[in-house]
Amino acid sequence: MPFQLTILGCNSAIPTTERKPTAQLLNVAERFFLIDCGEGTQLQLRKYKIKMQHIHHIFISHLHGDHYFGLIGLISTMHLLGREKELHIYSPPELKEIIYLQLAASKTELKYPLFFHSFGFDKPQLIMENSKLSVETIPLNHSLPCCGFLFKESPKLRRMKKHLIERYNIPLDKIQGIKEGNDFVLESGEVISHLELTRPVQKSRSFAFCSDTSYYPQIVPQIKGVDLLYHEATFLHELKERAEQTKHSTAKEAAMIADQAQVKNLVIGHYSQRYFDLNPLLNEAQSIFPSTSLAVEGETHEIIRSYGADS
Amino acid sequence: MPFQLTILGCNSAIPTTERKPTAQLLNVAERFFLIDCGEGTQLQLRKYKIKMQHIHHIFISHLHGDHYFGLIGLISTMHLLGREKELHIYSPPELKEIIYLQLAASKTELKYPLFFHSFGFDKPQLIMENSKLSVETIPLNHSLPCCGFLFKESPKLRRMKKHLIERYNIPLDKIQGIKEGNDFVLESGEVISHLELTRPVQKSRSFAFCSDTSYYPQIVPQIKGVDLLYHEATFLHELKERAEQTKHSTAKEAAMIADQAQVKNLVIGHYSQRYFDLNPLLNEAQSIFPSTSLAVEGETHEIIRSYGADS
Repeated sequence: MPFQLTILGCNSAIPTTERKPTAQLLNVAERFFLIDCGEGTQLQLRKYKIKMQHIHHIFISHLHGDHYFGLIGLISTMHLLGREKELHIYSPPELKEIIYLQLAASKTELKYPLFFHSFGFDKPQLIMENSKLSVETIPLNHSLPCCGFLFKESPKLRRMKKHLIERYNIPLDKIQGIKEGNDFVLESGEVISHLELTRPVQKSRSFAFCSDTSYYPQIVPQIKGVDLLYHEATFLHELKERAEQTKHSTAKEAAMIADQAQVKNLVIGHYSQRYFDLNPLLNEAQSIFPSTSLAVEGETHEIIRSYGADS
Repeated sequence: MPFQLTILGCNSAIPTTERKPTAQLLNVAERFFLIDCGEGTQLQLRKYKIKMQHIHHIFISHLHGDHYFGLIGLISTMHLLGREKELHIYSPPELKEIIYLQLAASKTELKYPLFFHSFGFDKPQLIMENSKLSVETIPLNHSLPCCGFLFKESPKLRRMKKHLIERYNIPLDKIQGIKEGNDFVLESGEVISHLELTRPVQKSRSFAFCSDTSYYPQIVPQIKGVDLLYHEATFLHELKERAEQTKHSTAKEAAMIADQAQVKNLVIGHYSQRYFDLNPLLNEAQSIFPSTSLAVEGETHEIIRSYGADS
């Protein structure tokens, strides 16, 4: 089952013909989650042949335009193309009025149910959960209230080794407990570890989206050990002062966060339009965190399953 | 002095990777007027190397998203790039609240003065006038209140033939009147026509933008004889019923309007996304009005000056 991130837009506030504003698509087992939706995102979806009607959940980190100006166009096009299925939007509270004001101006009555779920910014908040996935906000430190998002596959219980059920004559009502971590005690008093009685399952995969933010180590505990971290890196560290003024991060700082959080891989993006060549940003981050790659539009980052206990 | 129209977007409601939503740029003597501003217009301006900061007047025909969703992004980018000069927006009244709500959500205080000028829909209205140009609304017939725009170079007075001032001993205080059309009477009683005393000047050029609208011959008197008419042609005439339902025009109808108004040239656009090949639309229009061309993104339609009296 895939768990993969596709970059749709990787630039910061001012879009260029080469680089579009922020938008990313997370595919978790063929369920599609759109993260931020800068102007032109609907065209990026078309360009990369992603079916927009397969998206049911959209997450908007904050209300700077480069993160949401494409949303009203996407909502409208979904309507014009006859969508009937629900669409859920997770965002700062003000977005709902912005969208409905524009729908009212065009006298549009959507053919599909649209739900807004707003979140706060003071602490992490579980905003979506189903059998496959949970999503938490990651409060960030930006010039506007802003949250990243932590996507985690729902953990799976270990699997019983069936031949041992028979060998040890384990009653059915004990099996759930053993899967959850209870050891089993034989009549002789011998303890059989749950680890012996069960097989490991594939580990839950996780992705943390962190944009926009200044260097903010407070997020490290929450994103500890994620498989993939996207962290904004608007500037080179030589523009550290500019980054502080605008509450953005440098490539070095993004790498420091990745390093402190011991993530598996880092993707940087949200590049200032001043950078035509992105390699200096990559090199700066890799000098601290080697497993860094650049966000490039149309490229997909696949998270491969591994086996073992979820931490 | 140029009077030229550049097509930035030519599709109808649903943008495709090949064709963007409506936006056009009129260059009148190096003053730039943006007409409609669908999503992605700022990128189209970049693509065609048009300096967005040279635009001071933006005209929005109506509040279907494919005609204005790109405006907030353009306004924001102008701000981020340090604009200081005024920007004037001519639009239906509701647009002002839509824009200001989004600026407030991002706590943006624009560095430049932004003025909204709203118009009504019941009759033509002069909404802009300076020494070079006037702009009138053209009320259209669409599913939302909608106006086209008639751009006319300000008419120039005929020029005196200087050697005749001397020959007929014409007093200076008569000259303005002669330019305006008064004949001159000699002491002998002989009448010298103002046409003999003056030279013709270059005719005022004009452009009428008509989108979106059903077939609506009521506009014909207002757009009579314009040099260039842009008229929407969303469908082929075989989809006349669909055009009526959605209050759009067919290519045939656009040509009928051009023919009745005796315009010099017609450009059609606002194509339904169902048409990959646009030649059938062109052929249908040309069968009625031969001087028809297709709106194609990046292409410019130049209006050449001619000499003679303004009608």
